Parts: sequence; structure tokens; C-alpha cells
Amino acid sequence: MAEYDLVVRGGEVATGFGTTRCDIGIKGGRIVALAENLADGAQVLEAGGLLVLPGGIDSHCHIEEPSRGGYVGTAGDVPVTVNEESFVTASTSAFAGGTTSVVCFVPQWKGEGILPRIADYEQRAAKGMLDYSFHQIITDPTEDVLQREVPQIVAKGIRSLKVFLTYEPLHLSDEEYLKVLVTARKNGCLVTVHCENYAAIKWRTEALLAAGLTAPKYHAWSRPPVVEREATHRAIALAELVDQPIQVFHVSCAEAAEEIARAQHRGLKVWGETCPQYLTLTAADMDRPGFGGAAFMCSPSPRTTEEHARVWEMIRRGTLDVVTSDHCGFSMGGEDGKAVSGRDAPFRDIPNGIPGLAARLPILFSEGVSKGRITLDEFVRLTATNPARLMGLAPRKGMIAVGADADLALWDPKKQVTLTNALMQHAIDYTPYEGMQVTGWPVATVRRGAVVMRDGKVQAEPGTGQFLARGPYDYI
Amino acid sequence: MAEYDLVVRGGEVATGFGTTRCDIGIKGGRIVALAENLADGAQVLEAGGLLVLPGGIDSHCHIEEPSRGGYVGTAGDVPVTVNEESFVTASTSAFAGGTTSVVCFVPQWKGEGILPRIADYEQRAAKGMLDYSFHQIITDPTEDVLQREVPQIVAKGIRSLKVFLTYEPLHLSDEEYLKVLVTARKNGCLVTVHCENYAAIKWRTEALLAAGLTAPKYHAWSRPPVVEREATHRAIALAELVDQPIQVFHVSCAEAAEEIARAQHRGLKVWGETCPQYLTLTAADMDRPGFGGAAFMCSPSPRTTEEHARVWEMIRRGTLDVVTSDHCGFSMGGEDGKAVSGRDAPFRDIPNGIPGLAARLPILFSEGVSKGRITLDEFVRLTATNPARLMGLAPRKGMIAVGADADLALWDPKKQVTLTNALMQHAIDYTPYEGMQVTGWPVATVRRGAVVMRDGKVQAEPGTGQFLARGPYDYI
Amino acid sequence: MAEYDLVVRGGEVATGFGTTRCDIGIKGGRIVALAENLADGAQVLEAGGLLVLPGGIDSHCHIEEPSRGGYVGTAGDVPVTVNEESFVTASTSAFAGGTTSVVCFVPQWKGEGILPRIADYEQRAAKGMLDYSFHQIITDPTEDVLQREVPQIVAKGIRSLKVFLTYEPLHLSDEEYLKVLVTARKNGCLVTVHCENYAAIKWRTEALLAAGLTAPKYHAWSRPPVVEREATHRAIALAELVDQPIQVFHVSCAEAAEEIARAQHRGLKVWGETCPQYLTLTAADMDRPGFGGAAFMCSPSPRTTEEHARVWEMIRRGTLDVVTSDHCGFSMGGEDGKAVSGRDAPFRDIPNGIPGLAARLPILFSEGVSKGRITLDEFVRLTATNPARLMGLAPRKGMIAVGADADLALWDPKKQVTLTNALMQHAIDYTPYEGMQVTGWPVATVRRGAVVMRDGKVQAEPGTGQFLARGPYDYI
Amino acid sequence: MAEYDLVVRGGEVATGFGTTRCDIGIKGGRIVALAENLADGAQVLEAGGLLVLPGGIDSHCHIEEPSRGGYVGTAGDVPVTVNEESFVTASTSAFAGGTTSVVCFVPQWKGEGILPRIADYEQRAAKGMLDYSFHQIITDPTEDVLQREVPQIVAKGIRSLKVFLTYEPLHLSDEEYLKVLVTARKNGCLVTVHCENYAAIKWRTEALLAAGLTAPKYHAWSRPPVVEREATHRAIALAELVDQPIQVFHVSCAEAAEEIARAQHRGLKVWGETCPQYLTLTAADMDRPGFGGAAFMCSPSPRTTEEHARVWEMIRRGTLDVVTSDHCGFSMGGEDGKAVSGRDAPFRDIPNGIPGLAARLPILFSEGVSKGRITLDEFVRLTATNPARLMGLAPRKGMIAVGADADLALWDPKKQVTLTNALMQHAIDYTPYEGMQVTGWPVATVRRGAVVMRDGKVQAEPGTGQFLARGPYDYI
Ligand SMILES: [Zn+2]
Ligand SMILES: [Zn+2]
Ligand SMILES: [Zn+2]
Ligand SMILES: [Zn+2]
Ligand SMILES: [Zn+2]
Ligand SMILES: [Zn+2]
Ligand SMILES: [Zn+2]
Ligand SMILES: [Zn+2]
Repeated sequence: MAEYDLVVRGGEVATGFGTTRCDIGIKGGRIVALAENLADGAQVLEAGGLLVLPGGIDSHCHIEEPSRGGYVGTAGDVPVTVNEESFVTASTSAFAGGTTSVVCFVPQWKGEGILPRIADYEQRAAKGMLDYSFHQIITDPTEDVLQREVPQIVAKGIRSLKVFLTYEPLHLSDEEYLKVLVTARKNGCLVTVHCENYAAIKWRTEALLAAGLTAPKYHAWSRPPVVEREATHRAIALAELVDQPIQVFHVSCAEAAEEIARAQHRGLKVWGETCPQYLTLTAADMDRPGFGGAAFMCSPSPRTTEEHARVWEMIRRGTLDVVTSDHCGFSMGGEDGKAVSGRDAPFRDIPNGIPGLAARLPILFSEGVSKGRITLDEFVRLTATNPARLMGLAPRKGMIAVGADADLALWDPKKQVTLTNALMQHAIDYTPYEGMQVTGWPVATVRRGAVVMRDGKVQAEPGTGQFLARGPYDYI
Repeated sequence: MAEYDLVVRGGEVATGFGTTRCDIGIKGGRIVALAENLADGAQVLEAGGLLVLPGGIDSHCHIEEPSRGGYVGTAGDVPVTVNEESFVTASTSAFAGGTTSVVCFVPQWKGEGILPRIADYEQRAAKGMLDYSFHQIITDPTEDVLQREVPQIVAKGIRSLKVFLTYEPLHLSDEEYLKVLVTARKNGCLVTVHCENYAAIKWRTEALLAAGLTAPKYHAWSRPPVVEREATHRAIALAELVDQPIQVFHVSCAEAAEEIARAQHRGLKVWGETCPQYLTLTAADMDRPGFGGAAFMCSPSPRTTEEHARVWEMIRRGTLDVVTSDHCGFSMGGEDGKAVSGRDAPFRDIPNGIPGLAARLPILFSEGVSKGRITLDEFVRLTATNPARLMGLAPRKGMIAVGADADLALWDPKKQVTLTNALMQHAIDYTPYEGMQVTGWPVATVRRGAVVMRDGKVQAEPGTGQFLARGPYDYI
Repeated sequence: MAEYDLVVRGGEVATGFGTTRCDIGIKGGRIVALAENLADGAQVLEAGGLLVLPGGIDSHCHIEEPSRGGYVGTAGDVPVTVNEESFVTASTSAFAGGTTSVVCFVPQWKGEGILPRIADYEQRAAKGMLDYSFHQIITDPTEDVLQREVPQIVAKGIRSLKVFLTYEPLHLSDEEYLKVLVTARKNGCLVTVHCENYAAIKWRTEALLAAGLTAPKYHAWSRPPVVEREATHRAIALAELVDQPIQVFHVSCAEAAEEIARAQHRGLKVWGETCPQYLTLTAADMDRPGFGGAAFMCSPSPRTTEEHARVWEMIRRGTLDVVTSDHCGFSMGGEDGKAVSGRDAPFRDIPNGIPGLAARLPILFSEGVSKGRITLDEFVRLTATNPARLMGLAPRKGMIAVGADADLALWDPKKQVTLTNALMQHAIDYTPYEGMQVTGWPVATVRRGAVVMRDGKVQAEPGTGQFLARGPYDYI
Repeated sequence: MAEYDLVVRGGEVATGFGTTRCDIGIKGGRIVALAENLADGAQVLEAGGLLVLPGGIDSHCHIEEPSRGGYVGTAGDVPVTVNEESFVTASTSAFAGGTTSVVCFVPQWKGEGILPRIADYEQRAAKGMLDYSFHQIITDPTEDVLQREVPQIVAKGIRSLKVFLTYEPLHLSDEEYLKVLVTARKNGCLVTVHCENYAAIKWRTEALLAAGLTAPKYHAWSRPPVVEREATHRAIALAELVDQPIQVFHVSCAEAAEEIARAQHRGLKVWGETCPQYLTLTAADMDRPGFGGAAFMCSPSPRTTEEHARVWEMIRRGTLDVVTSDHCGFSMGGEDGKAVSGRDAPFRDIPNGIPGLAARLPILFSEGVSKGRITLDEFVRLTATNPARLMGLAPRKGMIAVGADADLALWDPKKQVTLTNALMQHAIDYTPYEGMQVTGWPVATVRRGAVVMRDGKVQAEPGTGQFLARGPYDYI
């Protein structure tokens, strides 16, 4: 009997110190050997000429996420809507793009507790092929939720609480946010924060709509960088008061990142995430005829090419140390996606979010490594090691090391690909990156020792994804 | 008949460029000549050996200010309380300390408009001897107030709107603050802001009280610098969004001042004020047995001696360019002042504020000029020229120049005085500066050509103060 | 007999606090009264509709300056060259432009002492009509010069030592510069410094010439901002070591100014000067056919329009607080000026310097005040008050105040003028600002009570200028 | 025959991502396998309960370094002195402390070329047991040296040029330094720089000695942080001009490090090194009776405990990314070491330098990792991975990865040791760290698969060290 279930042979293995040419021996889903010239395993995957990277960890994506009242805050008695990306389609898309684990979001509905939502969401997530962990969204921080329910989800291994400082009806007041911070601190959780100023966006939006400026492009006008900087500083200041670590989600501009850098220099445990859209898309993309701009609408808004350069600089300085997709797809066609309020809807009534699960790694690799903006080591840390560590998934996930889960992306660094929606293999009917040229592409994906994608073809049994329970953070 | 009503002879006159030895000829309440060897006027004031400074302008003081429900937010049906410092006593105190003009506050009561409060307050103010102008406090920014009433008060020459970001029930939400900013912008007003985070202070206060930490010194614990920095950044960011100038009141610490400096470097019209208490008092002053600490309780809280040094640096850098008293006195004795909730009241229930109208100039001169921290020019700008300009009172007020009102403080720069409450000549039964040694003292005060104080003796007829109507700001 | 020799009537007088409408009474060359409606003097100058400003002080100009071996460092036995701008022509030009006092440079020749050069230069300067003071250049800091001679010139009232960190053969080594700093400190002098790195420029120049890149435009290539930043930081660091105040001359770029700002924030007595050429001319101006670019060649080199914006910002922040002309003219025609080494000379052999004595105030007023970049108060401080104070000429010079010298520029703020060389009234045959449009122009100049220019016509007797002896600095 | 020459079994292996529990299989001096449960090799080293770290790389140490005229610049005809630490004693000391490779210095003598010195030094180095590489010191950058000799040493694999900006007679002028930078750029070398201002130290030293302040402690007075900051900024600015990467050696204070941080933020390839002495020793250590202070004398001077905290912060921020020993030992006894000029010699005449080869890793581990200032990953990068990469020794050296040299330090993180000179096992008769308590200690050292130290006992054959030739830098 072969000593290994799978041997990945002859690749340039990313070890965190550049690459090493060696074979990888895998048994029972874990890496058990890194060596020169391993004997064959039951299965062999030839990696000659390829990079072997840790499978991507996308610590911020919205998959099959239920929402009461729809995604645009119409609230009221509207029934539950479920995001059209299922755990099965998301798994396929993730594997196609070299990603093997995600952290997604359990909702809370105002007026209700969090336990029922977790029960429901656990069932949904269990049907996919990806490994997964959860952020628990808190929209109604009652005493019962904070005192009774949060300790229970922590016991399950859910170790991050997500809050919104904007969006109707999700946003928390400063008082509510403080309560979440205190609860997180008591329970050893990270708090992740969507930072934009609610009142400022509301005021701007009402003024724009009152002036008849309703097209998708006005979405960007409704939320300029200053509203993101304000909320970022506030989120940090209140966390500083409570002495609670936070991660600032989807930083889109240098002035918000600068607040994070200042906090880090004060010695605070504050981290910043950004996403490919803030390195490649611009507000101008929303300025298309008719409804077309809706395809690029997400929050914070895409900015400018000058801002992209500044965000890259913040990545290089280490201020922003995680790159996720913030995958949150709504199809452009049909009546339940972007057009849920009609194709003439004012920007306020169009769901926010874009798909990016499969595109994340190729775009970051191509724009980052291939274009010389970052090193391969930095790429690996941004997309796998750092999210694993920050989310409490390391050392099991996020690196290629003996003992770690055998989650791998075999990467052809020279392969040139033109992005199309078909390549994304997701449920959404478009990609905002359609037509983009990338250099570097995942040609095989291994999840816990199983070869789940080769040359774009995904093969994995629904229900094989595992829940990743997390312990207390190193960082807290 | 003499050419001049009054000649001030032989002083070192502060002209904005150091001092010049010359006489000052005054007629009709205005300066009509600065010259060597003027002929005698009807009256002559010998100033040999003295500095002649512009009369102080205290652009932030609370005088005879009515409050519904008391100063500590007990709200409800409690009847109106009026601050014990009347315009007559305040005028006496101001003249004793070399100050000739003030800007004080017209209240607004939630659920009511602002016009009735102005009518009342105009009557009160008219009884004093000081020249005065008003900030209009906005606590309930209804459409009627903003659209109909504000234009009317602007027409009267009230050109600044004051908002609180903390204090129950005064604080505004971000939405309300944005409305005030927009209204100010439309009407050519300055907005002045008390910057502390309401929710953070509330959370801290409740936690302290729940833990039995109720003594006056815990006031400082309830509002550390970070809550001031947070609100300062937010106040600026929202003003930046609206493009509306603001003045940040009573900056107590470098980290809040740094936010102002950053805004100024972005080219914003943001100014910062500080007060003598933030240069001389500390949180430790509130740590006295029993009720004694209440005498030093104001908001923001006094900080530390290290912080004093940093605030001086921010003055020297020009980030903080106005020094006012934030005079807001409550007697320590009796039942209507500091002890309104009893002498065992928890810190939350003790009125905030300290008296400082008479002490402002001597303290700033002594700690600043006499100790070499600032120049005489800087002193004059901080206490007279800059507030006059920022409040729209220049060129009539704030400088010694031909054509300006003859408001003067004759100053003995060598005179050493030990501060006592008697010297303050105010209505309050104590001064927090009792026993402090100062070098430099006002020996005579002239208000519009009338010698209203000599050697500490104030002589002025109640009702002789004038309302100072202001035009649109230069700075807006 | 009239009480006043001259009355300037009805102008808007710049007092340091904006302007005041008043008359100015002058007697014995000094201002003795500022008043409404003065009686007529022996002479009356109507100033209705005009600004009345302090006469300009140009604390950095090269007038009739002797040089041994020419201006381009050919050294050796070459006889003495004298800059073609005499004190008479310079006085005419200065008065034409609203300037009434200058500080110019006494040379030192290597191998010789400084006293002989002063004797010669005093004679030259005494022939002009401008009031004048001297900087003493030190190029050979021998023990005799430093120990014996410097105290003698200080006793005469020469209170600033000028050093070059670049230029053959003028530049000092770090060791020599340290000796000058120490001597200045002992004697109560300011040290003024030309900051560019000698070795870096030499290396770049040799490389450019070796590559055949000899045209005037390569002057800019030979001395990029980094060589100025380097020398600025070094000049400051060594002054910091010795605790000696310095003024950094002709700052051309933000990165050098930033070093000054950093030093000021450390509490050092370091000041920065800039010049109109760094706000209006660019390196591209030197890129003209043939010899034409030589007209714009000065050191540091003009930069870019983007840099101009940054230098304005440094002025507004107060980092750069003096604007001088660095007037150092060489005619474009003839054989002794710019073309001294021939009209095909490589850039290295073309004298550095441009004329600007008359253009300084109009350009700064127009680009600064008329275009809204600075206030009138800032203009007055930059061009008169600050140089007077820093050079130890205040309170006699630099302001309009009772007791000060009656040096005035009557300014028409609305007058539009196209600059031509004829308007400059200097000895040089061109102005680099030919054709530039300005708004704001001096229509009369008064020097110690004498009307020395009206409507461009200068009338003043050679030999009427006075030497301005200076006492120890306030600032040291 | 066993598959492996050596198996290191059961340790916590530092992989760059924290640690992994695995075995290490070594063959032919290289790591060929990292795996769970490897079969035994010819030799087995049990590492249970221990950390397994990459062998330390000390990229700055002075070993058996010849000097003409002694170490204190007496120059002239004095014969050659050789540093008393031989390659054999240094190898023993290094292995005792967990270090397996060094980069040391080939001298150049003024007036001579570099090739003869290399020939001599190669012979010396070949006698040791450590692997080694060279920095070539340049003290006389003649055309012959730069044009003819440097390419020859580069061909040998010597890829770094070391320059001094201070020390008589080693220091280079700016012109000379520029020439070295240009030569390095042409030949693909790194330049490493000792940054202190020569003239400033000379001036201070002469002043101190003239004042009779000659004791060892005045060494610190002669070279305050500002002289280091000045030279650091200058070294960077000139490198920026030439676009040549540099490493700033032995940064002792935050103000010098800040210059490096600023350069990095401008995108420059500038790196900073520090040493344990700047994290633990202070100027006060030199203030001992008599000659005792000489034991702590090195340049730059040790600073203060406050400065230590700031240097740690600069390490955490990544500004300083390499920690070396700057081992440069002189015995306190005898007549050829510290006392070469007598035991009453003024500080100027005492050789600079302290021994630290064996102490470097234990001190940094204990003060850094054990006290929680840095993570284990940071420790590994600072002491092995980063110097390997910067010096062009990676991927062969500096990490534990398949294919890399099997250089290992087995580390007991809990072992508590009191440092003594005996433990240092070097030739010098003292250690400045005598008596210091450390937590964490190397219990075995492996060099290219050979166990060269166990429990403090070093066993290795002289002459087994290898020269490490380097190729062109990744970083240039
Ligand atoms: Zn979000
Ligand atoms: Zn999201
Ligand atoms: Zn307030
Ligand atoms: Zn107040
Ligand atoms: Zn110059
Ligand atoms: Zn000059
Ligand atoms: Zn060194
Ligand atoms: Zn060294």
C-alpha cells in the first residue's frame, strides 16, 4: 500500500520563504511530507513548472445568505430572500479559482435571536464542498443575544461578530456597537466592521434623489471616501476605548487605510482588508447607459485609478494585510437580482455587491505578482496565511507545512487568460471583470487531499465541505 | 474743547507687531489717533510703564443662561434654571480681568423654536455693561427652526450655531448635525461644536456608576481623550462633506488637536479653541476628599501636566488659535450650584463647568508670556484678534487701530498677584485657580472709550453694553 | 509750521490686522501719527483707494557684489569682477517695485580676511539710495577670521554670516560650517545657508558634460530636489548640534521645506526663505533654443508647476516665512554677463542668478493676494515684517506703526500691468518675467518720509541710503 | 543504508509560519525531507520539546580582521594589527550561540588595492568552521579599485561594498561615497554604510578632550543621535540620487531609523540593521570607574532605555529588519585590546567595538520572544531569513525548507541561563552582557548536516567552513 494518498510532484512549493522545489506527500487529507523525490502515492499530481500555493482562504463572502426584506432595506413584511449563490455553486466557483475555504455570514433579523438563524445556515452550508466558517452578523444586540446566545455560538467555534455602521436596517448605533465590542472582548471574538457613516450616506442619497440624480453612477457620489474614513476612525476609536481587536472590512481608499495605519502605530490590534474591486474597478465603471452600471455597484464604492495606486501602497506597507472577494453576487438579468426594484430603479434601490469568488486570486496574482507590485510571498500571505491566522484557522489552514490540511492551488504563473463569466463557474449571470486579461491561473485545486479541480473542471461531492470551528484568537 | 474724549498716554501699545510707544486718542468711543505726544483729551489715562492691549474678547462663555430642567439633564417638567452669573456680575468680572466683549449662548429647548429664547435672552443681555454677541445653540433642528427661524436670527446678526455632540438632552445625532451644517452653509454662519462622543461617555459612565465609582474624580475616567478625538474627527469629517467651516470648542488634548491640524493641512476651514483649564488644571484636581473635586469638573475633563505641554505646542503651531474661558460657573455652596443633586451626588449628577471670565487673561499672560511659552503678539491674537476675526467682530473689535472701538486693557507685565475668588469679582463663590501666582495683571480697562476699571475697581452703568451684530464671515 | 513733514492721506493702511482707513503723519523720517483726518503736513500724498503697505524689505539680494575670479568658479588669478547692478541702479529698481531696504552680501576671498572686503563694500553701498544691511559671506573660516574679525563686524552691526554648502570655490566642508556655527553662536549672529550638496552636483555635472548634455536646461538635471533636501537636512542637523539658529535660503521645493518643518516641530530655530522664481518659473523655461535658457538659470533650479503649488502650501503653513528676490542679475547681452564664457558655454560655465528686485512684490502680490492664495496680512509679513524681525531690523523697519521709519509702498490692488524689462528699472538687460500679467502695483514709494517714487518715476539723491546696524537677535 | 545522514526528530520546526511538529531528513548537508515520522537516518538528533530554527546568520561581524595602524586611527607606519578573534575561535563562539554563517569584512588600506587583502583574508577565513561570506570595505576608491578590481571580486561572489562615513582614516567624503555607489550599481552589489557624521564627531571630540572630559563615558557625548541621523539621511539621499540600494548598519536610535522609514515610504531600497547592544546597553554603562566603561564602548554609542523601546518599535514596524552582532571584540586585559593606548587613554584612543557573536541570538530571543515584544516568526526573519535574503544567500541559507542547507539551531525556549564570558566561548576576555539573565537557549547546532554543537560543546574540524559566493541580488 502506498505511503501517501496523493503526491504532488515537482512543483515550486510556496513555503512562506519564496518557493522550494519539492514533492508533497499527503495522507488522510493532511500534508505529511515535503521532500525531494517522494515515492509515488496512490495518486500523483504532476506539478512540474507550476507553483504550488496554499489553497486560497476567502474570509469575507456572502453565500446563500438569507435576508429578511431583501437586500435594499425595504424591510417590513417582505418575505425572506436567499442570495442566489448556493453553497454548491459557490464551492464550484471557489475551486475553479483556487480557493478552498471561506468565512461567510450568518444573519440576524431585528427582533429575533441568532440561534435560529445559525441552525438554518448550518444546514445550508453543510451542503457545499468548500470548508467554511462563519461570521455572526449582529443587527439587534439585545441583552439576550449578547449575554446568552453569543457564548453559545462561541462554544460552537464561531469567533467573529460582524457589524455594519451603515445600511438600513442593519446599521448599529454607537451605543449598540459598543455593546458588541464589550461582548466580543468577554468571549474572545474578533469584531469585523463595515465602516461607512450611515447618516452621511442617507443625507447625500436623499439630496441626490431629490435632485433627480438617480442613475447607478450616483451610488459613488452618495458615499465618498470621507464617509468611509469617518466611520473607520470611529470604529477604531470605540474599539480602542474597549480594548477590543477589530478588522476593518473592504477598505477602498488610502484615507481610510491611513486611519488603520495610525491605529497600528499606536499599538492597537486593528487590521484592514481590501478586495480586488478596489484595485481594479472605478466609479466610472458605473457610468454606463441605463442599468449597466449596476453591475459594478458595491459598497464602499469603487474609486479611481489613482486610488488603486494608493491602496497598493497600503498593501505593501502591510497596513492592509488580507485580500478577500466580498463576493456578494446578484444577477443582472431576471427579477430577483440587481433588478429586484426594476431596471429603472434609483441607485438606492439596487442591491449592493458584486461576485468575485473565482476572480480574486487570478486578479490579485496578475495585478500584483505578475506586474511586480508585490512578491509571491506577499500574495500567499494576503490570500491565505493572513486570513487563516486572523480568523483562527491557522495552523490547520493557510500554509503548506507538514501537519496542515492539504489545501493547495497549483498555479501556472505564465498562463494568460481572458476572464469571462463562464470561467467564474458561479450562479451569477455576469462578472464585473469580463474581458480582463490576467497572467497566472490555477490549473488544479486540492482540498484536504482531494483533487477537486483540474484544468477548470470541478469534481467534488456536495456535502463534503467541513465546518471549521475556531478556538480563541492568538491575537486577542 | 478737547479734540479727544480720552487720551491714553505713554504706554507700550500692542499693535500686532510687538509694541510701539505711543499715545492713543479716543473720540466717540473709537480710536481716532495713535501718535507720539498727543495733546491732552478731556480725560487722560497715564499708561507709562504699562502695556496697552486690545480688550479681551471671550468668545465662549455661559452667562445668565437659562436651562430647562437643570444642567445635568434631569429633563422632564423641572422648571427653568438660570445660571447664577448675571450679565451685570459677568460684566464686572470681565472688566476686572481685562475683557471687554463676550460671545454667549442662546439656548433652545427641545420641542420649541429659537425665537422665543432669543427674545428672552436679548433682554437679559441688555442689562449688562459688556459688549456681547450670541451663539445660537441648536438642540432640536426641526424644519421650522432651520428653514424659517435661522434666517431671521442671521438677519439680526447672530452668525454662529452651536451644537453638542454629547450631553443629555442636548446632543445631536449625526443626521441632526448634518442638517445644522447645511443650514449654516446656506445662511453664512459658523458652526461651533462641543466634541465628545455621547455613546462612549454614556457607556463608561454607566459602567463606573454600576461599579460604585461615583466620586467627582471619575468624571475624568468617564471621558478619556479618545472620546474627544473621535468626536472631533467626526465633526470635521461631516463638515468636510458639507464644506462648512467649524470651530472646535475647548480642545483639551493633543490628540484632538491633531485632528484639527490634519484638517487644516487638507485645506479645510476648521479652527480650534482651548481654555486656561486645559493648560493648568488636571484630573488629579478632582481627586479631593468628598465634594471638593466638583470645583474642577468641566467637560472635556482636565487632563495631565504632560498634556498641558502638548496643548501649548499646539498653540505655538497655530492649530489652536483662540483661548477662551468657557466660563460656566456654579457655586460650590448653596443648593442650586454644583450641589444641586446633593453633596453626595455621583459625578454624573454634578453640573459641569467652571468660572474663568476674569482669570483667563492673567493666567494665559502669566503662563504664556511671562514664562516664555508664547510671545506678546501671540497672546494678543489668541485672546482678542483671532476671536474677533473668527466671530466676525473685526475690524471693530480685537485690535488697537485707528477706527476700531476703544476697548483696551492696560497691563502691568511685572505685577505679581495671587489669585483669589475676591479678585474674580464674579457671582460664583469660588475660583478653581485660588492661590495660583501670576505675573502680569490688568490695572485698567477701557470699553468704547469709557474707563470701566481702574486698579480693580469697576465702574460702569448697567445697560451700557451693546449687542454686536455680525455680518457674513470673511472666512466662509 | 506744519506739524508733519508729510501726510499720507486716506489710504487703507496695512497694520498687521488687515487694513485700517487712516492718515499717516510723518516727521523726521518716522511715522509719528496714525489718525483719522490729520491736518495737512508740509507735503501731502493722497492715498485714497490705495493700500498703504510697509516698504518692502528684500533680505537677500546681490548688489554690486565683487567677486574674485568671476561668478562661475574659474578662480585663479582672474581679476575681480563686480556685479553689474550698482547700488544706484538697484535703489532705483527697488523703489520702482515698492522695496525700501535690502540686506546684501559682503564677500570673502579665500586666503584673505573679511575686514578689507567690508571697507570696500561699505563705500559701494553708501552711494545708493536704499537703506541697507549686510550678510557677511564666509568662505575661508580661519582662526583669525573667526576669532578676531567676526567680533569686529558684529560690533559694527553686521549680524549674519552667510555660508554656501555648494559652489566652487565658495562651499564649506562640514568642519568649516561647524566652525562658523560656533562663532555665530558666540557672537549672537544668525547664519544663513545656501543648501545644495556640493559633491552630488559636481558628480552629476561631470556626468552630464561627459555625455555631451551641455545646454542650459541641463542645469536643472544637475541639481534635483534631493540634493537640496540633503543639504538642508545636514545644515539643520549640524546647527542642531551646536544649538545655533539658521535661515535656509531660497527653498525651491517641498521636500527641502519639509526638513525645515520637521526642525521647527522639534522646537529648533530654523527658518526658511523662498523666492518668486520658485513660485512661477520652471525647469522647462531653460529649455529654449540656444542660449535663451540661460535667462532663467539660478540655483537652486526652478522646478515644476506642481512644485509651485507645494511651495505655496509651505508658505501658508508658515514653514517658509520670508520671500526675497535673491536678485543676482547678469545681462544676457555683452560679454561680462551670462555670456562671460561665450554663448555656447556649457551650463556649468554660465553665471547663476536672475534679477528680481523690482518684480518681487508685484509677483507675490498678484500670484498670492490677487489670486487668493494668501491674505494681505500674510503678504506684508512675508515681504516686510518677517524679514525685518528675523534680520534684527524691527521695530524700526517692516511695519507701519508710530515710531517706525516711514517706509511705505502705496499700492493699487486693482492695477493690471504687463511686466517688461523697462518697468524693472534695473541695470540688467532683461527680466525673466517679461510678459507676465500682474494685478496689483506700487504707485508710490516713501523711504524715511521722502517720496522716492511716484507712478514709476524714481527721484532720490545718490548717497541718501543708510546703513542699518543691527543688535543681537531677539531670536537667538 | 539509511536514506538520511541525519534525522532531527520531533521538534517544533520554524517554517516561517509559526512552527510545525515534524521530522527533518538531511542528506549531503541539505534538507531533503520535512515529514511526520521519518525513518531513522544514520544519525538521529532528538528534538522533542525543542524549537528547531534556521541556523543564525550574522551578516555583520569583524573576525580576524587585519588593520594597518591599529583600530584607533593612529595610522602612519604602525604595523598591521589583527583582531584577536580568529576564524576558529569565532566559529566556536558562533556555534555555541546557534549561528552557522557570517558575513565579515575584507579591509582596504589607503594607497593600496583590494585584491591583495582579499587573498590574505581568504586564507584566514578558510581555516574556520563557519560558513562565511565577505563585505569588501572601500576606504580608497581609486579608479583602479573601482573599475578594475571591483568587477573581479564581484566575479568571485563578493557582492557588498562597505563604506564608513566616519572614523579616521576610514571615512569617505561625499564624492568618494558617490563613486562607490555608482560602482556598486554597475556591478550589482549592495552597499552597506556606517552612518555617523565625521566632522561633527571630530568637533565634539576635540571640544571634549580640550575640556578635560576624557573618560570612556564621554564617547557617548561625542556622538549623539543627531550625528547618526544626519549621516543616515545623507547616505540615503546620495543613494537615492544614484538609485542604488543600501543597508544602513547598526541603527542605534529611532531618529536614524525614522530616516530609513521615510526612505522606504518613498519606495527606495533602503534597509536598516540593528544590534542587541542597542536594545540592552546604555550610555550609562560606560560611566564606570576608571577604564571599566571601555567594555561597553562601540559606535554608534549605546543610548538609553527609552531609546531601546523606540528601537523595538522600529523592529516591529519592519523598518529595521536584520539584527546582527557587529561582533568586534577587544580584550579588556593585555596591551593589544581595549588598552592598546594605555588604561588612562582618553576615550578617543580606545578601540571601538564589543563582542557579541554568541550572545546575539539568546539575547534577541529572550528580550524579544520570551518577553513578548516580537513573535517567533519575527525572530527567525530578523536573525536568519532576512539577512540571508538581503545578502543574496537565500534560498540556500536562512530557512528550513527542502533543498536548503541543513543549518539548524535546536532551541530550548524555556531554558534559563545567566550569561557569562565562559559561555561565549570566544577569544575575548569579557562579555558586556556578563550576568544578564536570558530565557531560551540553543542546545544543539547543525551546520550543513553536521552536529557541531551539543549542550555547549563544540565539535568541528577547522577548515570545514565554506565560502558562500553570491550572485546578483534579487533586490537590485
Ligand atoms: Zn460590507
Ligand atoms: Zn460583505
Ligand atoms: Zn462645551
Ligand atoms: Zn461651553
Ligand atoms: Zn544661494
Ligand atoms: Zn543668493
Ligand atoms: Zn560600523
Ligand atoms: Zn562593524
